[in-house]
Amino acid sequence: MNLTVVVGLMGKRRSIGIDIGHTNIRAARVENGTVVEVLRERTDVPGGPEGVLEQVSRMVIALDHGSGCPVGVGIAGQCDSCLGVVRCGPNLFWPDVPFRDLLSARVRAKVVLRNDVVMATFGEWRQGAGKDVDDLACLFVGTGIGGGAIVGGRLLEGATGCGGHFGHISVCMDGPLCSCGRRGCVEAYAGGRNVEARARSLLLEDPGASPALAAACREDLDRLNGRMISEAASSGDPLSLRIRDDMAAALSSAVASVINSLNPERVVLGGAVLFGFPDLLGMVMRGAVEQCLVPAKAGLSIVPSALGDIAGAIGAATMALERYG
Amino acid sequence: MNLTVVVGLMGKRRSIGIDIGHTNIRAARVENGTVVEVLRERTDVPGGPEGVLEQVSRMVIALDHGSGCPVGVGIAGQCDSCLGVVRCGPNLFWPDVPFRDLLSARVRAKVVLRNDVVMATFGEWRQGAGKDVDDLACLFVGTGIGGGAIVGGRLLEGATGCGGHFGHISVCMDGPLCSCGRRGCVEAYAGGRNVEARARSLLLEDPGASPALAAACREDLDRLNGRMISEAASSGDPLSLRIRDDMAAALSSAVASVINSLNPERVVLGGAVLFGFPDLLGMVMRGAVEQCLVPAKAGLSIVPSALGDIAGAIGAATMALERYG
Repeated sequence: MNLTVVVGLMGKRRSIGIDIGHTNIRAARVENGTVVEVLRERTDVPGGPEGVLEQVSRMVIALDHGSGCPVGVGIAGQCDSCLGVVRCGPNLFWPDVPFRDLLSARVRAKVVLRNDVVMATFGEWRQGAGKDVDDLACLFVGTGIGGGAIVGGRLLEGATGCGGHFGHISVCMDGPLCSCGRRGCVEAYAGGRNVEARARSLLLEDPGASPALAAACREDLDRLNGRMISEAASSGDPLSLRIRDDMAAALSSAVASVINSLNPERVVLGGAVLFGFPDLLGMVMRGAVEQCLVPAKAGLSIVPSALGDIAGAIGAATMALERYG
Repeated sequence: MNLTVVVGLMGKRRSIGIDIGHTNIRAARVENGTVVEVLRERTDVPGGPEGVLEQVSRMVIALDHGSGCPVGVGIAGQCDSCLGVVRCGPNLFWPDVPFRDLLSARVRAKVVLRNDVVMATFGEWRQGAGKDVDDLACLFVGTGIGGGAIVGGRLLEGATGCGGHFGHISVCMDGPLCSCGRRGCVEAYAGGRNVEARARSLLLEDPGASPALAAACREDLDRLNGRMISEAASSGDPLSLRIRDDMAAALSSAVASVINSLNPERVVLGGAVLFGFPDLLGMVMRGAVEQCLVPAKAGLSIVPSALGDIAGAIGAATMALERYG
């Protein structure tokens, strides 16, 4: 046992995890494997990289009490994790921002950077629904759809550190245009932002198609959001249930393709949008298993995420501690 | 350096690789990294597992000259590589055959078993177009479509040893039924067997649609094969070119989904059906790059396989030597 480990065990093994989503930032301080404090704020999207950097720096300083402990950051974008650079994101439009080094200089701590769902995957693997499994795939359905995987007991990184973008598997090569530029990505069918856009478009075509949704947004389509659609689906609104069914079909197809490609022992499904719709999780679980190859089904389990909306922050803190603790 | 290695270096480091395809079996003896003898036979498909076992045993015995050197086997089916069992194959219908141990007992040698394209991937990685790369994805288009990957410098195996079945990525969730039971797999669009079936069906609908194909098969659709279609495409036959274009679209979509999922540094494309159609390789290369995420394009190269139709046999021999040599 070396000196670092001894000191770590004698003191508190502390790190901070930050999950920068398009809508919210969640920050957690983890000490000795336990989450001891969580902060949540709306993401300063209009502020751009500089605004979000300022916001995250404040949150880190509020949590770390000057300890300078390592920081992990997951961000809803495409990262080159080797270089610590946010290349671009379908959901956070930052071109080539060296966020890792900028934050590190600001908070005077070591920082590790990955995509947000890659961090959530790491969290679920180390402490959540993917514990003790060597082959794991995760898919989280939020504003966008992200993914991550553990392959043979190691995080799937990829050549430029942007592996695991299962949200940009196309389930229909002639399907609707995705924000990434290709057609038919599962995110174009089932990501929260696209689900909202589709509901708006269906209501524009036929304003009487969903009295429930029209009432929820007070007939102002700009106010329509994902929560209204999932609540309408829960109360039996046919248009919202049709949207839910199409989400289930697209998600089942993408998850089955991930299973056929990676042959994981476990698949973890998460994200507020997935959990918001009635029966959607079960529909995706059944649909994916029906479609995957026979030997890939052997011993396979598909389960909901266990760490809730702080999976990404926990994963980020855990990775920071393992890398720099 | 241990005794085994010393003896190996003093003598010949020899192994045998077998590639059991739906149409042909290729067997190679590799000595000190060089292919010194290759045998090719038509696969005894009607003979079933027992017939193919007998055939492969004969080929091994003809190649190994009684040395009992290790044998690698790649087979066009879904394998549990941990158990050495062929679970089932869309292209070779064997349910749960413990082929590894059966062959091992028959030829009195150590045997390692994988899917055929997983073996080809291993061959391309060690000696071919994927050399010196830590993140590699391969997709081979033959009778069916297979895949394989190297992730972070290690072969993608998966929980039950059946990872890498990229042929069963669905590119259209409402598409044609695949032999695996799901809809719209890239194999259903671009695998040789399905391409032939589609050409037959188009000619049945409209017997005048392709005078070139009608002449090639002497108006007997049972005689129609993939080579006739690719030759007709090369001579400008519109129906065959339409089939080629649809293959290109499906393959581009699947390859882009693999790139977005795994973020490889290199993609190797191979298989007789892919190379048989004019411009198909180039169309898939361009189509896939157009569709993949920006950071996944950085440093990416897509190249044709370098080891030809013995990639699988070379990979199998190489894996056998690394495992048991």
